Amino acid sequence: MEDVQHKVMGYDRTATMFAPDGHILQAEYAEKTVKLGSASIGIVCKDAVIIVADKRIIDKLVVKESANKIYEIDHHIMASVAGIMSDARVLIDKARVLAQQHHVTYSTESNTESIVKDIANIKQQFTQFGGGRPFGVALLIAGYNHKPVLYSTDVTGNYLQYKAEAIGEGDEKIREKLRERYKEDMTAKQGVNLALDIFKEVQGEEFKLDRFDFGIIEKDKKIRQLSGKEIEKF
Amino acid sequence: MEDVQHKVMGYDRTATMFAPDGHILQAEYAEKTVKLGSASIGIVCKDAVIIVADKRIIDKLVVKESANKIYEIDHHIMASVAGIMSDARVLIDKARVLAQQHHVTYSTESNTESIVKDIANIKQQFTQFGGGRPFGVALLIAGYNHKPVLYSTDVTGNYLQYKAEAIGEGDEKIREKLRERYKEDMTAKQGVNLALDIFKEVQGEEFKLDRFDFGIIEKDKKIRQLSGKEIEKF
Amino acid sequence: MEDVQHKVMGYDRTATMFAPDGHILQAEYAEKTVKLGSASIGIVCKDAVIIVADKRIIDKLVVKESANKIYEIDHHIMASVAGIMSDARVLIDKARVLAQQHHVTYSTESNTESIVKDIANIKQQFTQFGGGRPFGVALLIAGYNHKPVLYSTDVTGNYLQYKAEAIGEGDEKIREKLRERYKEDMTAKQGVNLALDIFKEVQGEEFKLDRFDFGIIEKDKKIRQLSGKEIEKF
Amino acid sequence: MEDVQHKVMGYDRTATMFAPDGHILQAEYAEKTVKLGSASIGIVCKDAVIIVADKRIIDKLVVKESANKIYEIDHHIMASVAGIMSDARVLIDKARVLAQQHHVTYSTESNTESIVKDIANIKQQFTQFGGGRPFGVALLIAGYNHKPVLYSTDVTGNYLQYKAEAIGEGDEKIREKLRERYKEDMTAKQGVNLALDIFKEVQGEEFKLDRFDFGIIEKDKKIRQLSGKEIEKF
Amino acid sequence: MEDVQHKVMGYDRTATMFAPDGHILQAEYAEKTVKLGSASIGIVCKDAVIIVADKRIIDKLVVKESANKIYEIDHHIMASVAGIMSDARVLIDKARVLAQQHHVTYSTESNTESIVKDIANIKQQFTQFGGGRPFGVALLIAGYNHKPVLYSTDVTGNYLQYKAEAIGEGDEKIREKLRERYKEDMTAKQGVNLALDIFKEVQGEEFKLDRFDFGIIEKDKKIRQLSGKEIEKF
Amino acid sequence: MEDVQHKVMGYDRTATMFAPDGHILQAEYAEKTVKLGSASIGIVCKDAVIIVADKRIIDKLVVKESANKIYEIDHHIMASVAGIMSDARVLIDKARVLAQQHHVTYSTESNTESIVKDIANIKQQFTQFGGGRPFGVALLIAGYNHKPVLYSTDVTGNYLQYKAEAIGEGDEKIREKLRERYKEDMTAKQGVNLALDIFKEVQGEEFKLDRFDFGIIEKDKKIRQLSGKEIEKF
Amino acid sequence: MEDVQHKVMGYDRTATMFAPDGHILQAEYAEKTVKLGSASIGIVCKDAVIIVADKRIIDKLVVKESANKIYEIDHHIMASVAGIMSDARVLIDKARVLAQQHHVTYSTESNTESIVKDIANIKQQFTQFGGGRPFGVALLIAGYNHKPVLYSTDVTGNYLQYKAEAIGEGDEKIREKLRERYKEDMTAKQGVNLALDIFKEVQGEEFKLDRFDFGIIEKDKKIRQLSGKEIEKF
Repeated sequence: MEDVQHKVMGYDRTATMFAPDGHILQAEYAEKTVKLGSASIGIVCKDAVIIVADKRIIDKLVVKESANKIYEIDHHIMASVAGIMSDARVLIDKARVLAQQHHVTYSTESNTESIVKDIANIKQQFTQFGGGRPFGVALLIAGYNHKPVLYSTDVTGNYLQYKAEAIGEGDEKIREKLRERYKEDMTAKQGVNLALDIFKEVQGEEFKLDRFDFGIIEKDKKIRQLSGKEIEKF
Repeated sequence: MEDVQHKVMGYDRTATMFAPDGHILQAEYAEKTVKLGSASIGIVCKDAVIIVADKRIIDKLVVKESANKIYEIDHHIMASVAGIMSDARVLIDKARVLAQQHHVTYSTESNTESIVKDIANIKQQFTQFGGGRPFGVALLIAGYNHKPVLYSTDVTGNYLQYKAEAIGEGDEKIREKLRERYKEDMTAKQGVNLALDIFKEVQGEEFKLDRFDFGIIEKDKKIRQLSGKEIEKF
Repeated sequence: MEDVQHKVMGYDRTATMFAPDGHILQAEYAEKTVKLGSASIGIVCKDAVIIVADKRIIDKLVVKESANKIYEIDHHIMASVAGIMSDARVLIDKARVLAQQHHVTYSTESNTESIVKDIANIKQQFTQFGGGRPFGVALLIAGYNHKPVLYSTDVTGNYLQYKAEAIGEGDEKIREKLRERYKEDMTAKQGVNLALDIFKEVQGEEFKLDRFDFGIIEKDKKIRQLSGKEIEKF
Repeated sequence: MEDVQHKVMGYDRTATMFAPDGHILQAEYAEKTVKLGSASIGIVCKDAVIIVADKRIIDKLVVKESANKIYEIDHHIMASVAGIMSDARVLIDKARVLAQQHHVTYSTESNTESIVKDIANIKQQFTQFGGGRPFGVALLIAGYNHKPVLYSTDVTGNYLQYKAEAIGEGDEKIREKLRERYKEDMTAKQGVNLALDIFKEVQGEEFKLDRFDFGIIEKDKKIRQLSGKEIEKF
Repeated sequence: MEDVQHKVMGYDRTATMFAPDGHILQAEYAEKTVKLGSASIGIVCKDAVIIVADKRIIDKLVVKESANKIYEIDHHIMASVAGIMSDARVLIDKARVLAQQHHVTYSTESNTESIVKDIANIKQQFTQFGGGRPFGVALLIAGYNHKPVLYSTDVTGNYLQYKAEAIGEGDEKIREKLRERYKEDMTAKQGVNLALDIFKEVQGEEFKLDRFDFGIIEKDKKIRQLSGKEIEKF
Repeated sequence: MEDVQHKVMGYDRTATMFAPDGHILQAEYAEKTVKLGSASIGIVCKDAVIIVADKRIIDKLVVKESANKIYEIDHHIMASVAGIMSDARVLIDKARVLAQQHHVTYSTESNTESIVKDIANIKQQFTQFGGGRPFGVALLIAGYNHKPVLYSTDVTGNYLQYKAEAIGEGDEKIREKLRERYKEDMTAKQGVNLALDIFKEVQGEEFKLDRFDFGIIEKDKKIRQLSGKEIEKF
Repeated sequence: MEDVQHKVMGYDRTATMFAPDGHILQAEYAEKTVKLGSASIGIVCKDAVIIVADKRIIDKLVVKESANKIYEIDHHIMASVAGIMSDARVLIDKARVLAQQHHVTYSTESNTESIVKDIANIKQQFTQFGGGRPFGVALLIAGYNHKPVLYSTDVTGNYLQYKAEAIGEGDEKIREKLRERYKEDMTAKQGVNLALDIFKEVQGEEFKLDRFDFGIIEKDKKIRQLSGKEIEKF
């Protein structure tokens, strides 16, 4: 009821306005776009971090690699996204540039969290300043700096570090299953199986290995990516 | 019903606003403009990529060449468009400049995907920042970098790589037919015939060879263009 | 019906907004201004291009030359306009400067199409960016670069090359007549007569030679201009 | 009826919006301001150009010279205005500066039409760009470059050259009388008498010589100005 | 009636909008602020110009000098104001700076009219450009350049030269009395008496010498200022 | 009644709009904020100027000094405020910087009135230009330049010099009492007692010495500050 | 009632508008966001200052350290926050940079209050200038400069120094309890116990040591941080 009223009153027209109850409604609408996107699951395993991403598209006219949902940001950092794909591309490209600037400036490997923070700061600005809309995208960013790490940033630019996390369609359901079954000493193989099992349960008959992209970062190794049937053989 | 309400509430007045369900309605309206444009079909063939573009105009007062719908971007990259023609020209010109800058800077041939991405980034900005409207145009961009490639960018600045794709009027119908009949080892001749057959089926009595422009890029060859009756003799 | 609704909903208030059906209504309203303007006919003849322009004004207080509707842009390029006269002057002046810059920079004669394109690009910007209204004017631009050429740009910044074309009041009726009677091998004399005949038919009793200005560009010759009775004696 | 609707719909709120019928209503409202201003008549005579301007004010507290409605722009160019006086002053000052810049740059006398055009261009910009309102003033500009010339610019920045012209209150009525009685070979004396006769007929009992300012530019002579009773003795 | 409608339609919301009858309503509202201010009378006398200004305040807590309504702009130019006092201070300060700049640049005494014009131009800009409101203040500026002069500028930036003039509360009534009794060869003493007599008649029982400030500029003398009872002894 | 209408019509939405009666309503609303603030009384005494400021807060969790309402601007200038505390802090800080700049530039002690004027000018700008709201704060500024002085600036940027003045809650009542009992030859001790007596009468049972801060500037001495019970012993 | 009306009238749509009663409603709505945030309690003890912060999250998927609510700003300054977490991060980062700049510029330890003031000034600007929304976050900042200090800044940019203070959910209830039980000579141990006791009473069954982060700054020691069960053992 109050919700309808807030719409009529126009509190939801710009990200630069608080509703009387203290919410920023445009940010909440942008969050809906994220929930419309296909899901990704990230899991921190023993000496590895993995992402399994649903890309949903199985249109045979599309070149599969071009719809890959695992994005390499640095040789030890990768991301997956849910929401508006063109918004995501802009942020992924920005992250890649930040990583390269780090290499050139400090000659050491880039730090996953500082890249996550820079991206999150850009997102925050679009929820506070006028002249644009918030980025309609959530990012799951995984990296390996001495140990495997996993971060997730929402549309408001908030971020937290996770042991395991899901973004996109059905994220809440997936999280419940992760809370039940996730173990800190999982092997990468166990992590992938957990992710695929969860997707199977959530998607039911729609489940198909073809839909998925998989990325893994292990100690002192570059990102490895697999797609479709290859994932199971990992 | 909800749609009407969103209009009354004004969520569809600017590309910098999310509707309560997470959609950006101005971008969806711009998409309608694209569907009003005449169609183009792009097909990746064995060692070649082709575009067959319907230009619809048969007004005898117009100089035919001036209504050509195949645009050369570089000697190995071409594009066709659907939507607002003046918007398209601006983006095509921008793409040409990007290709020239590449030649001058690196003395190598320009990369099709990086041009596609630059154009897509420009489009994305117009769906996030205020002060302008989104570009009302979709582009089908074909090129040859070691192998034939085909990309399509929508009004939001999203893009994917395709084996075969259609933009403009009746795109969904055309895509269905492409999915059924496209084969990866088609010759260019077979590709042209497939495109023309599909146009024939979709346009029925309106079909006329005069309406079409044709472009082909083959390995180590410059773009060749044909129009009307010449296409059939290819 | 839908049209009325779009007005009530305000989709027609700025050129930076798409209506739900994909139209940009401010551009369409600007087009109406053009149709309110007096008409001009351009015809490409054998080795010449001509424009016959109706200036409508016969107020004896006005100095006739000052209401001349044939504008010289370069010694081999001329234009006529329909719509808001002050908007037209701004674009004509811009075109003249572009032509002069070409002379100064390249020491060759300016190219008609590149001037047309620059003017069209300016027009396009005013239909995409906020802070101003579209130019309410259509231009008919005729030139001679190796051969006679004729272009027409509408308010959205779209342009095409024509064999014969009309802008302004009753343009559609005039075009129909041109389609029937235009021949590619017409002499300039025949072209003028065709234009005047058409004006006679369209204007009926209102027709009067005094209302017209006439411009012709022939191979290797500068623009020649005639007005009123002189035209017939051409 | 349609007019009322256009107001309710708000098409008349800014000069950067076209109404559905292609009109720019703010410019038309500004035109009304001009019609509320006191009238001026300009007449091109044999070897002279004159302006007779009604200043309406006869308040004895005002210093008459300060309400003079003939403005000297250069020693051979003068103007009169109708509309918002402070807007007029800004444009007159701009015209004076343009004339001085010409003298300093080219060491020749400034050209009346190029000053008229520069002023008209400024006016045009205020009917196309947002952030301000159109200038609410019409200018009648008379000069002598080899021969006497007279120009009038309206609020949209359009201008034409005239043999005789009126601006301000009752301009249409005055023009009708000018059309009937104006002769190209009038002497300056005859021109003044014509202007005063017309004012007498239009103003009836309100007519009083005190209300008028008079300016004349003759070949190789500087502007001469007279006021009130002096005019008759000219 | 029409007035009410113009309010409902919103034509009175910004100084950058014309109402359908050609008025700029925000400027007219600002004028009301001026009429709410306390009055000042300026009179040009034989070899002197005087201003008598009502400051209205008789609050014993206020330091009288600080409420003085005669402002010295240069040693031979003074002003009084009616309207928003903080707006006035900004313009008075600007005028003082302009006068000082003149001294520094030309080493001659500043010209009263050119300062008046500069201030009036600033006012005009605020009635044409968006982003601010018009200055809600009228200025009466008196000076001595070879002879005594008096100017008055309204909120639109219009100004005229006067023999005698009033601004603020009851200005119209005061002007009528000035028209009846003002004589060009008045001595300064007679001028002061005329101003005080008029204030007495207009204010009735409210009249009190304490309310007034008085300023006089005589040939080759600096401004002299008197307040309250001192004025009568002048 | 008219007031309600002005609200409905929206004349009170921005400080850059005049209401039809010439008022700037946003400035008047900001004035209300000032009246909601706790009161301060300033009194010019024989060779001293004092301020007694009510800080209202008696929350034992707050560190008293941090809620001090007497602000030192320079060693011989102090201020108290009423209204939005964060707005006040910005202006107080600005005043301090202005005073320091004076010391550095001229090596003499800063002038109280010129600091008052600079602060008032900043306030004025926020009532004339768009893009921000007026400062919701009144300042009482006391200083000693050869003699004790007291100024008060309101939200519009107007200021006057006072012998005694109050700002904030119940200011009008306090002023009445000051008018009755203030004497120009009061000693500082008498001034403090007067201020406290008035606060006692106005606050009744709410009165408590703990609520007050006290500041005094005497000839050639630095500001002295006292709080609560100390004040009485002064 | 009046509240509802102010919403309907739109006084609550931007932080740059005063409501008729002098309130800035957007700032008050932002304050609501703060009250929705989890609570933090700060207490100044004998030679130490402590903060106990509720982080509420007990999701086992989140890495606990990443949800830590005690932020180190300098080695002797820490903060906790309530409200929008991404807004908080921006301000915390800004504070860290300010502290580092101080070290680099002055080679002395940074002053807690000057950092508090700089952050508060940034907040104030977002409640006065257009183009953005206020920061939806309150900060509790504790430091040790010669003695332990505690500050709290609200969304408007106001700040005060406290002996003990709470922000976030149930802040008013917590404050009441602090007023009753706080003693200035508490040891750090007693302070922690007081904070935990209060949280126990306020949260009832929801209370769990796991929810809390704890920070302490003692004389000449760096910040120490503890979480969950460790706190009790402190």
